[in-house]
Amino acid sequence: MSPALIRFLPILSWGRTYNRTALSNDLVAALIVTIMLIPQSLAYALLAGLPPEAGLYASIVPIVLYAVFGTSRALAVGPVAVVSLMTAAALSNIVEQGTMGYAVAALSLAGLSGAILLAMGLFRLGFVANFLSHPVIAGFITASGIIIAASQLKHILGIDASGHNLLELVISLVEHLPEINWITTIIGVLATGFLFWVRKGLKPLLQRMGLGTGLTGVLVKTGPVAVVVVTTAAVWLFGLADMDVKIVGSVPQSLPPLTLPSFSPALLGQLLLPAFLISIIGFVESISVAQTLAAKKRQRIDPDQELIGLGAANIGASLTGGFPVTGGFSRSVVNFDAGAETPAAGAFTAVGLAIAALALTPLIFFLPKATLAATIIVAVLSLVDFSILKRSWAYSKADFAAVLATIVLTLAMGVEAGVSAGVLLSVLLHLYKTSKPHIAEVGQVPGTEHYRNVLRHEVLTDPAVVTLRVDESLYFANARYLEEKIQSRVAKDKDIRHVILQCSAINEIDFSALESLEMINERLREMNVKLHLSEVKGPVMDRLQKAHFLSDLTGRVFLSQFDAAQTVNRKTDLAAPAG
Amino acid sequence: MSPALIRFLPILSWGRTYNRTALSNDLVAALIVTIMLIPQSLAYALLAGLPPEAGLYASIVPIVLYAVFGTSRALAVGPVAVVSLMTAAALSNIVEQGTMGYAVAALSLAGLSGAILLAMGLFRLGFVANFLSHPVIAGFITASGIIIAASQLKHILGIDASGHNLLELVISLVEHLPEINWITTIIGVLATGFLFWVRKGLKPLLQRMGLGTGLTGVLVKTGPVAVVVVTTAAVWLFGLADMDVKIVGSVPQSLPPLTLPSFSPALLGQLLLPAFLISIIGFVESISVAQTLAAKKRQRIDPDQELIGLGAANIGASLTGGFPVTGGFSRSVVNFDAGAETPAAGAFTAVGLAIAALALTPLIFFLPKATLAATIIVAVLSLVDFSILKRSWAYSKADFAAVLATIVLTLAMGVEAGVSAGVLLSVLLHLYKTSKPHIAEVGQVPGTEHYRNVLRHEVLTDPAVVTLRVDESLYFANARYLEEKIQSRVAKDKDIRHVILQCSAINEIDFSALESLEMINERLREMNVKLHLSEVKGPVMDRLQKAHFLSDLTGRVFLSQFDAAQTVNRKTDLAAPAG
Repeated sequence: MSPALIRFLPILSWGRTYNRTALSNDLVAALIVTIMLIPQSLAYALLAGLPPEAGLYASIVPIVLYAVFGTSRALAVGPVAVVSLMTAAALSNIVEQGTMGYAVAALSLAGLSGAILLAMGLFRLGFVANFLSHPVIAGFITASGIIIAASQLKHILGIDASGHNLLELVISLVEHLPEINWITTIIGVLATGFLFWVRKGLKPLLQRMGLGTGLTGVLVKTGPVAVVVVTTAAVWLFGLADMDVKIVGSVPQSLPPLTLPSFSPALLGQLLLPAFLISIIGFVESISVAQTLAAKKRQRIDPDQELIGLGAANIGASLTGGFPVTGGFSRSVVNFDAGAETPAAGAFTAVGLAIAALALTPLIFFLPKATLAATIIVAVLSLVDFSILKRSWAYSKADFAAVLATIVLTLAMGVEAGVSAGVLLSVLLHLYKTSKPHIAEVGQVPGTEHYRNVLRHEVLTDPAVVTLRVDESLYFANARYLEEKIQSRVAKDKDIRHVILQCSAINEIDFSALESLEMINERLREMNVKLHLSEVKGPVMDRLQKAHFLSDLTGRVFLSQFDAAQTVNRKTDLAAPAG
Repeated sequence: MSPALIRFLPILSWGRTYNRTALSNDLVAALIVTIMLIPQSLAYALLAGLPPEAGLYASIVPIVLYAVFGTSRALAVGPVAVVSLMTAAALSNIVEQGTMGYAVAALSLAGLSGAILLAMGLFRLGFVANFLSHPVIAGFITASGIIIAASQLKHILGIDASGHNLLELVISLVEHLPEINWITTIIGVLATGFLFWVRKGLKPLLQRMGLGTGLTGVLVKTGPVAVVVVTTAAVWLFGLADMDVKIVGSVPQSLPPLTLPSFSPALLGQLLLPAFLISIIGFVESISVAQTLAAKKRQRIDPDQELIGLGAANIGASLTGGFPVTGGFSRSVVNFDAGAETPAAGAFTAVGLAIAALALTPLIFFLPKATLAATIIVAVLSLVDFSILKRSWAYSKADFAAVLATIVLTLAMGVEAGVSAGVLLSVLLHLYKTSKPHIAEVGQVPGTEHYRNVLRHEVLTDPAVVTLRVDESLYFANARYLEEKIQSRVAKDKDIRHVILQCSAINEIDFSALESLEMINERLREMNVKLHLSEVKGPVMDRLQKAHFLSDLTGRVFLSQFDAAQTVNRKTDLAAPAG
C-alpha cells in the first residue's frame, strides 16, 4: 500500500492487523463511553442552544469519520463544553435561538470549521495553533468554565436569562430571579450536589471498599446516567412538568438526518472568524489530549493528519444535523482507560449512540433541563483552574499578565474577544521581551580564553576595545535597539577604536538586523572605530555571506572571541603604543 | 543643573557653551536651509491638501520647539513628503478638501500625533517603532513615493483627479485626461525636467568646473527656488493665469496664526489610528536621520527624548496653523552639510521663514501649482528604491515577501492599509520562522568533547541516547513543535532510554515552553525514557529554578554536553550491559 495513502487514511495501518482481542477490548470501551455520552451530548446541545437530539447526532457520524482519518487510537470526538459555548456565542449574535435559522447556522458553522481544519491539514498550517500560548489557553479555558457554569444557572433556577459574558449573565440572572421555580431549583441543586459527591465522595468510598480503579472509574462515570434516570422518573411520577419544571420534551426517534448547511455568503462571512477560533481552540484541545494518550503507548500523533481527521468529523457533523465537534478530554480518557485499542471503539460507540437516538429518545421526554444543566456545571468546574495564576506569577510576570488579561477579558467581553485579545497580548509581550535583549559587555577572565560580563566578573578589558555579547537573535524588533546601544556606548568614550560583537547566542539575523549591522558598521566608520564579529554560528554566517555586509565590514570575523581580542589588541598596540 | 532637567531640556546642555563661531556657522546653515524650505514647504502643504501658507506655518514654530526639546544637533523638522501624503489620506476620508473643517482636522491630526509622540516619550514606549521592520519601511517609502508622484501628475497636466492608491489615481487621471491644459503641462514638464537636470546633470557639471562639493550642493539646492522665480515671472508676464494655468493665488501676509485644534471626540476617534501611524512613521524616519548625522560627529541621540522633541513640534504645529511634521532627510542633510552646529540653526531658519511668511507671500501670487508639483515629484522619486527587492530576495525570502507585500498593498490599498498589513506580515513571518526552529540531532566528534549534527558530521552516537540541540529560544510559538519532534523521534525507536536536550542556543524559556518541557518530561516518563538537559545558560537556569520543573525532571542537568553523554552512557551500560 502506498505510504501516502496510509498517511491520509490511517485506518489502513491499524485495520489490517485488527483481531479478536482488539475487538472485545474496543467493544467494552465503546459500551462504557456510550453510557457516559448519552447525557453529555444532550447537555452540550443544550449549552450550544440547540435541541437535545443535535448532541446525539453530533456524536455519531463525526466519531466514525475521525476513526477513518484520525491518527489517535483513543481520541473520542464529539460535542465538548468550550466549543459548545463558542458555538452558542457565535450563533446568537446572528440568529435567534430556537429558530430554524439557528440550527442551519450551527450546521454551517460546523461545515466552515471543518473546511478550515481540512485546509489547514492539507496545507500543513497546523503551526497557526502554536500562536495560542499556554497562558492564553489556560486563562481562556478557566474563564470559559466560569461562563458556562453561570449560563447553566438559569436552568437550575428555572428562569430565563441570557448573555455571553459573566457580567451580562449575572445581571440577567438577578433580574429574572423573582421568577424562580422552586421545584426546578430543588431538582437542580440535588442533581448538582449528587454529581459532585459522585466525583469527590463516591470515588474514594468505592476505592476504600476495595473496588479496582477501573471499576470505580466506570461506576463514577455512570453517575450522570443515574441522575438522568432518577430525575426523569421523578418528574414523570409526580407530574412535575405541569408545575412548570422545564423538560426536554419530545425528541424525534431517528438516525442522524441528512442535512445541508447554508452556503449564503453573508452568513458564512459572519461565521468565518468564530469558525476559525473554534477550529483553533478545538484543535489545540484535541491534539493535546491525543498526544498525552499516545505517549502512554509510545505512539505517534501526526498533527497535520489530526487536522484532517477533525475537519472530516466537523464536515460530517454539518451534514448530519450536528454542530461543531472536537476531541474531548474526559470522554477520550474514559475510552482509553476502558481499554480502547483502535479507533474502531469510536465506531462502536457511534453504533451505541445511533441505537439510543432510534430507541431511547421517548424515555427522556420527562428529563428535566435542570438535570442536564447540573451535568454541565459539574463537568466544567473541573476546567476552572486558578493555580495557573500562581504558577505563572512565580515564573514570569509577562506570562502572568497574559493569563490574567485573558481571564478578565473573556469573562468581561466573551469568548471571541477574550481569546483574540489573549493571542494579541502574548505576541506583543513576546516582541517586547525580545525587543530589548540582554546585551552584556564582556572581558577576559584572567588566565583563560573565556569572556564574561564585566558587571558580574573580575575580567580584563582594553580601553580601546569594547566587546558586546547579544543574548538574543537579531531581528527587526531589536535591530534598532542594538544600533542605539552601540552608538551611545561608543559616543560616550572617545578612546574606543574597536567594537567586537560576540555572536555566540545569535541564532538568526534577519534582513532588518542585517541593515542595522550595515548601518552600525557605517556609523562606526564615521567615528573611526572598527567593527568585528566573533563566534558567528554556521547558518548565520552562510546567510551573511549572501549579502555585501562582510565585504563592507571595517573589521574582521573571528572564529573565537579569544582570537578576536588577541588580534585586535595587537593591532591597537602597534598603531598606538602609548594607548 | 539637575541631570533630569538637562535630559528633558537638551537646550540647557549646548546653550551654555554657545559662542560666536557656532553662531556664524548656524546663521549660514539657516540661510541655506531657508532658501531650500520656502518652495518645499509650499509644495508639501499642497500635497497635504492644505493652502500653501500652512506649509510655511508648519515649518516655523515646530523648528523652534524641536530646538528646545530635541537631542539632534542637525535635524530640521517640518513638513515632509510621506507624512504629508498620510495626512491627506487620513483627512480626505473624513472631511472635504478645501473646507474650513479640513484645515481644523489637520490641526487636530497634528495635535493628536504630538500627544501620542509625547506620551510615548514620557512613558519610554519608543520600542513600539521597532515593530516596523526595515523591509516594511523600505517598501512603504517606495510605494508612497510612487503614489505621491502619481498624485502630483494632475497639477502637471492641469486637470482634476483624486484617489489614495495608485489604481484610483490612474483611473481618475485617465478619466480627466481630455481636460488637459497644455500650457500648464508645458510649464510642469519643463520644471520637472529642469529639476531633474539640476540633480543629475548640473551637479557633475559644477564639480567638473572645479567648484567645491559644498558650494555645488548649495547651488543644486537653489534649483527649486530658481524654477519658482522663473515660472512665477512667466505666468505674470504672459498673463497665463487667464489661460487656466492654476496658480497659488493670494496668500495672507502673516506670522503663523494662533489656532486651536478640534477636541470633538468623534473627530479625534476617527483620527486616532492615522495619527498613530503618522507618529510612528514620522518618528522612524526622523530618528534614522538623526542617528546617521549624530554618528558623523560621535554624538548621541536619545530616542525617548526625540519622541518628546517631535511631540512638542507637532503640538506646536497644531497651535499655529500647521499640520503633522517630522524630521526630514534632505533638509537635515543640507543643514548638516551647511555647517549647522547646534539646534540654534533651526531657530534661525524659523526666523527666515517667518520673514518669508510676512514679506514674500505676495510674490508667489502667480506661482503655478505645476511648479510646486514638479518640486514634489523630483523630491519623492529619490525615495523610490526597488533595489530593496533584489537585496532582500538574495538574503531572505521571508523578508522579500514582506517588502513585496508592503509595496503592493500600499499601492493597491493606500498608505494606512499598506503599512498596517506590512507590520502584521512581518510579525507573522517572524513567528512562523521561529515556530519551526532548527533542531539538530548531535553526536560526539570522535576524540573530542565536541558534539555536532549527525547529518553533517561523522560522529559517535549511542542507540539508547538521543541528543537534540534546539537552535532557538523556546517560547509559545515553538513549544508544541518541540513536543511533537521529541515524541515522534522517541516513538519511532524503541531502544531509546535517554533524551538529552542541549540548551546552548536557548536564550529564553517562557511559561508555555516550560509547560511543554514538563509535558515532555511526563510523556517520556510514560515511555520509560529519561529527560536530561545540558549547557543551560545562567539566566535560563535562574528562571527554571523558580518552577517545579527541575525537581520533577526524570534526568539531570549537566554543565556540558560531554559530561551529560559520559554520565548517561555509563548509567545505560550499568543498567543494561547487553544494550
